[in-house]
Amino acid sequence: MTRTISLAVIPGDGIGPEVISEALEVLHAVVDGDAVVDATHYPFGAGHFLETGRILDDADLAALAGHDAILLGAVGGDPRDPRLTGGIIERGLLLKLRFALDHYVNLRPTRLFAGVPSPLAAPGEVDFVVVREGTEGPYVGNGGAIRVGTPHEIANEVSVNTAFGVERVVRFGFETAAKRRGRLTLVHKTNVLTHAGGLWQRTVDRVATEYPSVTVDYLHVDAATIFLVTDPARFDTIVTDNLFGDILTDLAAAISGGIGLAASGNVNPDGAFPSMFEPVHGSAPDIAGQGKADPTAAILSVAMLLDHLGLADEAARVTAAVAADLASRSGRRSTSEVGAAIQAAL
Amino acid sequence: MTRTISLAVIPGDGIGPEVISEALEVLHAVVDGDAVVDATHYPFGAGHFLETGRILDDADLAALAGHDAILLGAVGGDPRDPRLTGGIIERGLLLKLRFALDHYVNLRPTRLFAGVPSPLAAPGEVDFVVVREGTEGPYVGNGGAIRVGTPHEIANEVSVNTAFGVERVVRFGFETAAKRRGRLTLVHKTNVLTHAGGLWQRTVDRVATEYPSVTVDYLHVDAATIFLVTDPARFDTIVTDNLFGDILTDLAAAISGGIGLAASGNVNPDGAFPSMFEPVHGSAPDIAGQGKADPTAAILSVAMLLDHLGLADEAARVTAAVAADLASRSGRRSTSEVGAAIQAAL
Ligand SMILES: CC(C)[C@H](C(=O)O)[C@@H](O)C(=O)O
Ligand SMILES: CC(C)[C@H](C(=O)O)[C@@H](O)C(=O)O
Repeated sequence: MTRTISLAVIPGDGIGPEVISEALEVLHAVVDGDAVVDATHYPFGAGHFLETGRILDDADLAALAGHDAILLGAVGGDPRDPRLTGGIIERGLLLKLRFALDHYVNLRPTRLFAGVPSPLAAPGEVDFVVVREGTEGPYVGNGGAIRVGTPHEIANEVSVNTAFGVERVVRFGFETAAKRRGRLTLVHKTNVLTHAGGLWQRTVDRVATEYPSVTVDYLHVDAATIFLVTDPARFDTIVTDNLFGDILTDLAAAISGGIGLAASGNVNPDGAFPSMFEPVHGSAPDIAGQGKADPTAAILSVAMLLDHLGLADEAARVTAAVAADLASRSGRRSTSEVGAAIQAAL
Repeated sequence: MTRTISLAVIPGDGIGPEVISEALEVLHAVVDGDAVVDATHYPFGAGHFLETGRILDDADLAALAGHDAILLGAVGGDPRDPRLTGGIIERGLLLKLRFALDHYVNLRPTRLFAGVPSPLAAPGEVDFVVVREGTEGPYVGNGGAIRVGTPHEIANEVSVNTAFGVERVVRFGFETAAKRRGRLTLVHKTNVLTHAGGLWQRTVDRVATEYPSVTVDYLHVDAATIFLVTDPARFDTIVTDNLFGDILTDLAAAISGGIGLAASGNVNPDGAFPSMFEPVHGSAPDIAGQGKADPTAAILSVAMLLDHLGLADEAARVTAAVAADLASRSGRRSTSEVGAAIQAAL
């Protein structure tokens, strides 16, 4: 009996639909025979919000929660549009999904594929993964302000860290490192953020005793950015807080060929909720509709999705096809040309 | 009448004393005739703490506050020493000074000097300054934890931002940009940290009306790290929060030749308290006492100190001597060889 994968697809705004269309073609092509992808499209995004006034309500969430997985392109409109300020779409859609679907692992692999130029003069071997916490830290929305707009305004942001939340992502970090090259680096700022940092450090120290094969290392977040540009080869698995992970993964994407190639997974490892896969890049309204967007990050997100669903062979085939395509790229190609080339290389 | 500069010198630990000794020689040489430097040495640092149990008490603070300026080498002992964990020296000395002496501007110029290798393949013109807030944000020590060590531990960190604190550093940012190339970039994470981000963004928008010659730009901190490695030439003056500034300036140092060349000033622009100048690097206990440390960052910190004290010509001569030395460097030289070469180039 053929397995059916119930997939929610949120193409989103800007270049989102273009890259998702290529990614879906690759997905359908690679599972051919082994599984059937039953894709349901959802209109969520900045465009949908501007048309309907709705971002994502409880019924939408319930619908999405019923699928096996979610594939998202990119959301976000014109950053100068006053109706979209303050990250209303980012928080109302992307972050809302991460919290509602308990995506406590934000998984961001970084690999400098052969043939891809890096801004670094001598990048060396770049192949690591960032396990970013996804449901705590300064992202919880527990800030507040008083006397707003007056000379006496005070605006606070609260980073919330729990033993429960830190331990589960740290465990995932150790599992990941154990399956890779056995090297886990905790990144934090323990010398300043002593309470949160202490919890993270003690949790890593304790869980480490269960993983004698994993070497553990610690870096302050500022020092980590230095090593990402001077010696990225030292990294295998990084485990870190939500905000530090946000910063480090954009830098990691930059050194490995840009966010046009970076895939990510918002993962609920327990399987209680569907996980969501998306390119790290945004909706890039400036180049939307011109066939200029690189669908590679979206296609690599499909590989992560396949891996998550237990289709490891299919995932490996997609990654290999991307690697083959990147190794032989020359000249500018359109979105659909890249998609077709990767499909052909499958 | 010759001006006397009352200078507090904290050589500190590790390579601190070595680089400070060269920096002081350059300082004495350059002011020769125009001013007299009356230097008082203070023993503060990890070594002093381990010997005496004291880091920095009220009497120490009062003594330091009586000087015109402070020059610090580097503090910090062996990171594996259990008596020094949790950033006790960093917080008890460096951060305590920033808060007690109201160093609300943490000034960090970044310049890729001719002859200095960058890890970037095509760095282009790198010449910008980061105006980092120094007395607010997540550095205020307002965090806390409950049920520590239990499975129910909750550890919070609070970022505190005030209209007063943000406005004064933003004004300094505009002043700085106006004297430079007239381009100010606010870096924050307004789409997630909406309360603090809103205060920063509104403050920049309001003060901007007073500086029509300054072009204002905004970047999320994650995107800023991308541009620092793909297009650092786009930056002139960055104004940002304490934590983001910490992260961005280490990355900035890395792309411009490393923290061995990065100088910084902890500045109280009002002049109510002495400002403190220090290299960005740490005490590097692993290479201490071997004459391997590069004193250039400490010497550039002397240039910032001179500038701050109104000795702009002397500051320019030090910077020019450093530039000349960097342009002609070849082979490994000892700490004192570098110091002597820069002194000779004065
Ligand atoms: C859009 C924004 C809220 C988001 C984040 O900060 O997590 C993005 O930068 C990311 O990394 O996925
Ligand atoms: C030592 C540490 C507390 C300090 C900071 O985080 O500010 C350092 O990293 C710096 O940038 O001066």
